[in-house]
Amino acid sequence: MQTHPRTPISKIGKFGLIERILGSFSQEESASPASAQVLFLEGIHFDLTYTPLQHLGYKAVVRALGQVMAMNVTPHHLLVAVGLSKRFFVEDVEQLFVGIKSACNEHQIKLVGLDFESSYTGLTLSVTAMGVANKPLSEIPKDGKPTDLLCVTGNLGAAYMGLQLLEREKALFSSKEKAQPQLLGKEYILQRYLRPTLCTKLFTILHQEEITPTSICFLTNGLAHGVQTIAATLGCGAKIYVEKIPIATKTFEMAQELNHDALLCALNGGDDYEFLLSLPISMHQKVARELPVDIIGHLNEAAQGTILITPEGNALPLSSPGWGE
Amino acid sequence: MQTHPRTPISKIGKFGLIERILGSFSQEESASPASAQVLFLEGIHFDLTYTPLQHLGYKAVVRALGQVMAMNVTPHHLLVAVGLSKRFFVEDVEQLFVGIKSACNEHQIKLVGLDFESSYTGLTLSVTAMGVANKPLSEIPKDGKPTDLLCVTGNLGAAYMGLQLLEREKALFSSKEKAQPQLLGKEYILQRYLRPTLCTKLFTILHQEEITPTSICFLTNGLAHGVQTIAATLGCGAKIYVEKIPIATKTFEMAQELNHDALLCALNGGDDYEFLLSLPISMHQKVARELPVDIIGHLNEAAQGTILITPEGNALPLSSPGWGE
Repeated sequence: MQTHPRTPISKIGKFGLIERILGSFSQEESASPASAQVLFLEGIHFDLTYTPLQHLGYKAVVRALGQVMAMNVTPHHLLVAVGLSKRFFVEDVEQLFVGIKSACNEHQIKLVGLDFESSYTGLTLSVTAMGVANKPLSEIPKDGKPTDLLCVTGNLGAAYMGLQLLEREKALFSSKEKAQPQLLGKEYILQRYLRPTLCTKLFTILHQEEITPTSICFLTNGLAHGVQTIAATLGCGAKIYVEKIPIATKTFEMAQELNHDALLCALNGGDDYEFLLSLPISMHQKVARELPVDIIGHLNEAAQGTILITPEGNALPLSSPGWGE
Repeated sequence: MQTHPRTPISKIGKFGLIERILGSFSQEESASPASAQVLFLEGIHFDLTYTPLQHLGYKAVVRALGQVMAMNVTPHHLLVAVGLSKRFFVEDVEQLFVGIKSACNEHQIKLVGLDFESSYTGLTLSVTAMGVANKPLSEIPKDGKPTDLLCVTGNLGAAYMGLQLLEREKALFSSKEKAQPQLLGKEYILQRYLRPTLCTKLFTILHQEEITPTSICFLTNGLAHGVQTIAATLGCGAKIYVEKIPIATKTFEMAQELNHDALLCALNGGDDYEFLLSLPISMHQKVARELPVDIIGHLNEAAQGTILITPEGNALPLSSPGWGE
């Protein structure tokens, strides 16, 4: 009797699975449309108890756009497909598209495809953003050097704190029916989770100044994962410094209130929607003066691994949780 | 107190919903990537009880490619995102991609994006196919004339009969645990449902002969819906003839066995993955001689509506069921 191997996905993780499947396709480099597809599933990626539909629509579009921008390509077109269970009404769909349209208008994106499907189990949102690259494109160029600067836009961990706050209020609301959510003064972290905006200014300046990063990563899975992705793609190691990682005061405050470590939120929290990029060290002056980024560290020889330097000067290995674990 | 309107989606139907949402976007014509996104949800679009994963992958790709081809554009690139619940193993995903890869190889398509997400509730498959149009593109040109021929590739209703057979066998299997599926001799209709192929020959000849249809529709919701879509887009009516509609012998046999009306299966069954196109009547000779199609009727003045002519010469209004009804 033949037995079939049954490998749990958690054993190889999300990125192991992507690698394994891509390995079965022969992929030569060629000019290709820069495009990114985002799949948002109710219960996994969003909770409609506390996520307004228009913010959800906005966020899904912004996520797809961010991924295309991280290919150093300006997105121009959008496709949207929505799966709807019977509990949704036409007005709900309109709310969703108020957010989608708002994101399209802000970024001069044209909606070129729209479809709806029935769903048994809630809301499914699939968004594809596209731009056309003028030259052969690989997601991240491979000419990074072990001395490249690592820079990040905005600040990190805020969206994760927003999510934790929403989850706390949801739990309280379920336990005491009369409890009203305590969200006053927390607008910043809530906005960072519910309706994140993209640092498009970065790309405007990169373009104006004719600066080409050696790599760009759109941060959706936490800083640690972004650093590891860039290091692995460029065949380098990386070193980042705890005290250089930008974390907002509001994030620190919320972390304290919820008894979280703000640094861990920044490293592994996810949903930041900021850009991490590597740039030649020769551009140090220009980067510091012109770009809306913080320099948080640099690439390193591969043998050094990816490490985090504490304020005391200790080196810790940088780790990020895989998917399905 | 303000009351919010709550319109059931069934009241305006899938296509009413698409129109309503698109109406809120300002859409000027411009050169755009020809692209189509397909969202397949478990329990709605497929039943894994009787759908092999590799066929599912193949079919989802072919559906997206067919939609791009119906824009008279050759698709070149593919994005795939998969939502997976915990019951799926790595080998299941590999099976799915055996089918996806097979469809890609057959049609010289390059996979340019791949992502996996967790899902609570089963398998979600989102596939985007893309080609780049050389000129400003609208899905269906609008210069059709009320005398244009209506032509269709292949034959219709077979996939729907395949699905009905699979559903019958599933029900039998549930009721009597020892029952074995009775599928022998039914390979043709099963293949039409589980692993449909595209009539790419049509486009090869259209290209060689430099024939540009006035419209093309990829048939996924039944012939009646396709005819109505083309008529509405071109601002025409349409007349099709019952005895001209191509239906395979195997489809008739299965319809008889299952006590269905084969004509209704062809008109409204769906999942045909054939192409319906309109062509100038001046091309009648060429169409009959060169193209792999049947001429099933012609466009008409809008005032005549969309009608079906029975073998007895009676005219019936052509109707197609909406979505969510």
